[in-house]
Amino acid sequence: MSIKVEQLDHWVTEVRDDVVQWRRHLHAHPELSFEEEKTSQFVYDTLNSFHAFELDRPTRTSVVARLHGTKPGPVVAVRADIDALPIVEENDFAFASRTPGVMHACGHDGHTAILLGVAKILSRLQEHLTGEVRLLFQHAEELYPGGARELVQAGVVDGVDAIIGAHLWTSLEVGKIGITVGPMMAAPDTFHIVIIGKGGHAGQPHLTVDSIAVAAQVVTNLQHIVSRNTDPFETLVVSVTQFVAGTTNNVIPGSAELVGTVRSFNPDLRRETPKLMERVIKGVAEAHGAAYRFTYNHGYRPVVNDARVTQRLRESMLEAFGPAAIVDNIRTMAGEDFSAYQSKIPGSFFFIGAGNPAKGIAYPHHHARFTVDEEALAIGVKAYLSGIFKLLEDGVKG
Amino acid sequence: MSIKVEQLDHWVTEVRDDVVQWRRHLHAHPELSFEEEKTSQFVYDTLNSFHAFELDRPTRTSVVARLHGTKPGPVVAVRADIDALPIVEENDFAFASRTPGVMHACGHDGHTAILLGVAKILSRLQEHLTGEVRLLFQHAEELYPGGARELVQAGVVDGVDAIIGAHLWTSLEVGKIGITVGPMMAAPDTFHIVIIGKGGHAGQPHLTVDSIAVAAQVVTNLQHIVSRNTDPFETLVVSVTQFVAGTTNNVIPGSAELVGTVRSFNPDLRRETPKLMERVIKGVAEAHGAAYRFTYNHGYRPVVNDARVTQRLRESMLEAFGPAAIVDNIRTMAGEDFSAYQSKIPGSFFFIGAGNPAKGIAYPHHHARFTVDEEALAIGVKAYLSGIFKLLEDGVKG
Amino acid sequence: MSIKVEQLDHWVTEVRDDVVQWRRHLHAHPELSFEEEKTSQFVYDTLNSFHAFELDRPTRTSVVARLHGTKPGPVVAVRADIDALPIVEENDFAFASRTPGVMHACGHDGHTAILLGVAKILSRLQEHLTGEVRLLFQHAEELYPGGARELVQAGVVDGVDAIIGAHLWTSLEVGKIGITVGPMMAAPDTFHIVIIGKGGHAGQPHLTVDSIAVAAQVVTNLQHIVSRNTDPFETLVVSVTQFVAGTTNNVIPGSAELVGTVRSFNPDLRRETPKLMERVIKGVAEAHGAAYRFTYNHGYRPVVNDARVTQRLRESMLEAFGPAAIVDNIRTMAGEDFSAYQSKIPGSFFFIGAGNPAKGIAYPHHHARFTVDEEALAIGVKAYLSGIFKLLEDGVKG
Amino acid sequence: MSIKVEQLDHWVTEVRDDVVQWRRHLHAHPELSFEEEKTSQFVYDTLNSFHAFELDRPTRTSVVARLHGTKPGPVVAVRADIDALPIVEENDFAFASRTPGVMHACGHDGHTAILLGVAKILSRLQEHLTGEVRLLFQHAEELYPGGARELVQAGVVDGVDAIIGAHLWTSLEVGKIGITVGPMMAAPDTFHIVIIGKGGHAGQPHLTVDSIAVAAQVVTNLQHIVSRNTDPFETLVVSVTQFVAGTTNNVIPGSAELVGTVRSFNPDLRRETPKLMERVIKGVAEAHGAAYRFTYNHGYRPVVNDARVTQRLRESMLEAFGPAAIVDNIRTMAGEDFSAYQSKIPGSFFFIGAGNPAKGIAYPHHHARFTVDEEALAIGVKAYLSGIFKLLEDGVKG
Repeated sequence: MSIKVEQLDHWVTEVRDDVVQWRRHLHAHPELSFEEEKTSQFVYDTLNSFHAFELDRPTRTSVVARLHGTKPGPVVAVRADIDALPIVEENDFAFASRTPGVMHACGHDGHTAILLGVAKILSRLQEHLTGEVRLLFQHAEELYPGGARELVQAGVVDGVDAIIGAHLWTSLEVGKIGITVGPMMAAPDTFHIVIIGKGGHAGQPHLTVDSIAVAAQVVTNLQHIVSRNTDPFETLVVSVTQFVAGTTNNVIPGSAELVGTVRSFNPDLRRETPKLMERVIKGVAEAHGAAYRFTYNHGYRPVVNDARVTQRLRESMLEAFGPAAIVDNIRTMAGEDFSAYQSKIPGSFFFIGAGNPAKGIAYPHHHARFTVDEEALAIGVKAYLSGIFKLLEDGVKG
Repeated sequence: MSIKVEQLDHWVTEVRDDVVQWRRHLHAHPELSFEEEKTSQFVYDTLNSFHAFELDRPTRTSVVARLHGTKPGPVVAVRADIDALPIVEENDFAFASRTPGVMHACGHDGHTAILLGVAKILSRLQEHLTGEVRLLFQHAEELYPGGARELVQAGVVDGVDAIIGAHLWTSLEVGKIGITVGPMMAAPDTFHIVIIGKGGHAGQPHLTVDSIAVAAQVVTNLQHIVSRNTDPFETLVVSVTQFVAGTTNNVIPGSAELVGTVRSFNPDLRRETPKLMERVIKGVAEAHGAAYRFTYNHGYRPVVNDARVTQRLRESMLEAFGPAAIVDNIRTMAGEDFSAYQSKIPGSFFFIGAGNPAKGIAYPHHHARFTVDEEALAIGVKAYLSGIFKLLEDGVKG
Repeated sequence: MSIKVEQLDHWVTEVRDDVVQWRRHLHAHPELSFEEEKTSQFVYDTLNSFHAFELDRPTRTSVVARLHGTKPGPVVAVRADIDALPIVEENDFAFASRTPGVMHACGHDGHTAILLGVAKILSRLQEHLTGEVRLLFQHAEELYPGGARELVQAGVVDGVDAIIGAHLWTSLEVGKIGITVGPMMAAPDTFHIVIIGKGGHAGQPHLTVDSIAVAAQVVTNLQHIVSRNTDPFETLVVSVTQFVAGTTNNVIPGSAELVGTVRSFNPDLRRETPKLMERVIKGVAEAHGAAYRFTYNHGYRPVVNDARVTQRLRESMLEAFGPAAIVDNIRTMAGEDFSAYQSKIPGSFFFIGAGNPAKGIAYPHHHARFTVDEEALAIGVKAYLSGIFKLLEDGVKG
Repeated sequence: MSIKVEQLDHWVTEVRDDVVQWRRHLHAHPELSFEEEKTSQFVYDTLNSFHAFELDRPTRTSVVARLHGTKPGPVVAVRADIDALPIVEENDFAFASRTPGVMHACGHDGHTAILLGVAKILSRLQEHLTGEVRLLFQHAEELYPGGARELVQAGVVDGVDAIIGAHLWTSLEVGKIGITVGPMMAAPDTFHIVIIGKGGHAGQPHLTVDSIAVAAQVVTNLQHIVSRNTDPFETLVVSVTQFVAGTTNNVIPGSAELVGTVRSFNPDLRRETPKLMERVIKGVAEAHGAAYRFTYNHGYRPVVNDARVTQRLRESMLEAFGPAAIVDNIRTMAGEDFSAYQSKIPGSFFFIGAGNPAKGIAYPHHHARFTVDEEALAIGVKAYLSGIFKLLEDGVKG
């Protein structure tokens, strides 16, 4: 099935208003990760109203929709994440969050609406389809261990040849599409360090083991992991993001806590980094007579895009949006549990530009005033359809 | 008036029970600094009952009692501090604090009771006295800027030739008297530093100015002030006692706060230290593109004991308690607003041993289970009387 | 002119012994950078003996050979560097260096011999050639500012459409060809820092400004440039490689010297790094009352390979050696003045595997026992010819 | 034997010119530690010419002179050190050093001349003396393990009740006498640290263990020993005075050397400090995967002046020079092997002011232009005689 861009534009125009409405509805009714009851029901009901999909609820708050074409062919999956964040919305839209303390501050409302728009269009094209399109409305992307892993375990990508997914991205201008072969989003691990000294009077440091002075040296010495111990061609971040110690000005506290994150792509480097960190922490603590506790928590795997799927995707975007729209090699140290699918099947993740500084749409993701340019919604529908058709047509083999 | 030790012991024995009762009453009814309403009334009423003192209330919550001898002679002042602390008492004495959240956790109840005992004895000896004894029941020793400064401004030490004061001290065993010529208790200044970086995503350190990394370097570089910039024969402590920055694992915080204390004796060093600190903070902040705020708060002056007064005091203690009781050169980095009197007139501060590990009396000052061995109370009465008589007799000149 | 691999192999076989002989002769008679008198004369005479090239000596110790085809076409340049190093050779070959203290310890002897072999073959093919082949025998690659810059200024690459060059590489096994699109070899800048404190007696640090303590903090704080101030997707190295201060144990020295190198690819990063370094040095010095001098010396530009030329080159290597021989994305933080040509015209640099651990040929470049597997020489001839023919045939446009 | 100051002045005046001549002779003919052949012969011959002393050469280059009084009494020793330093003199006196590379740059020439002056005066007073005066002309003060230890082992202070000694001191103005009870000069220990990393290419820090980066962290972390681990009332210096690593800008060196000194008074602190240092070195090295070697060398003990002997000495100086001349509590972190005598018998060391900035006499000890104001020589003679007579008269007991 080869689709002309004009045809695509026509279909997208038809669903554009629906998609905006759906997004606004979802935005007004955000639900936290693993608690997406109403959201998933809304998705289910909407999909059901299209009378074309085979619907399934692999977990309590996720929905999978299958559309089988009339002829055999590749199985292509598309994923949208549907959960919101524990943030107090500061926007004053009519459709701002009606659930106190919960907000769609990352654009998942848009992701869901876009994929519903894709579903509506596809539902009318079933007879022309070869192969299968499988739409995954995934819960809990924001909260480790994430919904993607559960869906993979539930078998939702069994038999799938390629999966694509996307993120509305406000640091990319609306109209742009960000495409990357290989490493695109980092593995976001976290750590927790406690330096255990010995508290005492601030005027008698020699009777204490000054946990703050030691923890400060730990922070300083940890810098060497990136600057000295890592291949300069590799990508690694070790950030201490919390330092909490002491309660007053005349007592040296008995312990100091450090919290932070490690971001990486290379699995060897990721395996080695906690060892190097513990070596630094242990050595520095012992240098000053302190003890320590070190906990390292692995987060999602890095998003590493399959070369062939990405190439197909890129070609379809070129056709759909022209070369000026394509931004290559866009990468970020943020994490995504889309990687769980990629550990099972070839996949490619891309960014849909959603920022518009001229309209004041420039707040970063997870900000209380985050929003997207709604023009990006129709672009997203078109992008997904282009990719789906290309992958169904050309396959991902050879 | 030359007093034999036996005579002294006899008088002390007579008031011993009163002193214990007074101390327990005060312990049960602690009041915070500048709020010592009932305490000062209790002191006033008790002194009044001795029918000998000329009483005065120089401030709302302090009391000064003057006893003029029949013959002219030196004016000797003795100071007791009367305030308590905002600490929840964990002792289960019958006389434990009845005021929730307030506790005599530093022994000022004992100081007050001892000086009342001294007053009771002196009240019967007026006709034998030469010179004047002035008893200062001072409020607000625990809270900067302290009550001593107010009393000095109110003129309570005008005309005084020498002042003595003491602290019940649990890290000194009961029976011991700690005496020091010169520097004895440090000037306890405090500081507050804010390192102002630029917050951002933990995976994109290059788009931030990492306030934690910079503040850690500040802590580390501040060590040089004591280790490299201070005359090794001088005494200086610079302790960072609080480090507060960040709230989560994926955001580099925009600022980091450091709080701490500087302890010193030498006025030049004290004047120079904040300048050196700011030089370090400024340099390190600028090294990494950060800004800073630095606030330095001067606390009490150091307690530096007058050589001549201390020598008289030491001689009287030798006579009263014998050489085995004397502990010379006891010093501490803690502060005391007794120094306010010393900036005006010659004075000497000493420690009255009040610890008794065998009885479990070993908690540090300001601890929720702090208490003193009550044997120290009678010793305190005897010590003060010995000192007073010696100073009245020998004077402090020549 | 399309050449079959068999034909290529035949020609290469014919010159193989010459190439080995030339390499050994050159190895025995190494000359330092800018002093390659005999070497360039040897090259000139040898080329002259082929009776085909238009020879030129653009500088005193370099040679350029032009071979014009009979038909118009692209101009393709190939570069070999001819200089040796100030190293005492420890090999005991019959053809080991006969010039004390000078050694071909980087393989330039092989580069020169290979290109002479290429020349000999090409000299017989002139009538079949379209376009022009220009062979650059460049002096002084080892010594900044390098010979490449001089040759560019002398116009030797004027009119050239593409240039290729290669390095015999012992950390790559003989038989392999290393190919990289984009950044391949770093810009190797150097720096010199003097921390100016104030010397004095080691027992009186407060009367000094301890240049060692300050310089140690400079080293430690410089780590932040890579770990905190650089985009994790970028490649940067800041290494302090010399720290020299003090002469005895009882004097704090008045100054401390730091020497080191910065390696980078991204021009913006390269421009920014000395500024960040100076910010750190200045801030840390001022934090401790020290002064500083900072000198930053730019070295060669990074070798960044042109995508199109590299693609042509890669295709020709695939045809000549098969896919198993190709090692993609090989990169190194070492520098190369080949970059001087690339700043003028499209070019691509590649590695010719020359290591053979089984034969004990595994010493790193610049080692006193460095050598190459001579099998690599014929491979080099074949590789160059393949690339030349491909570029002449397909051009580098479009 | 009670001496009037006028009498003392008269005697001193008589020997003044001799003393200056002797000092100039000695200054012109300096000899290194343990090589004081001619110097000791000169001392021996001069003393011999006084026809009063019982002379002894306890070691090859030292001289001891005993003068027994006619009546029994205390034994008082006085020590002068006689050795010079390996320094090229830059003074242009007529009596500047005639031995190239050797110089009396610390004033020992003056010490020796003064004690010879004392000897000459005493030699005429033998019949009036009670007790014994023992004059020690000691070799090798400048070179550890020093001559004092040898003399003690040779028994030269057996039977001595008190020993005094002095140093001409240019940072004290001529006319002043510096007196200190207790700690006066530090124990000067030294250390040597090697941080053993792994060398390699400066562009590949991850393949090295960067010995410079680790050693810099060692220097930084060592600061905590003084700033955090030492009682603020104690005196300790830890100075790294040499940092030597690396030879070029593109190689990370495999090891880095640190040399320095520790100065202390308190024996417990002195015992503890190398342990704390090794804890820091080991911890920091291990934090970064490096190894280390640590050597700690104990130097002379600290000079700690006996309270009673010093009190006698101070009284005699008050009588001889008046209160304006006395500078109390002068202390220095420099070392002196006079401490070897003090570990055996009560002793007191003092400073004789020898600086005179108005005359340009202000160079520090061990400087190539060091000299003393020769007015200090007569003062020294008078000071020693005053002290000797006081100690002989009052004894050092009770």
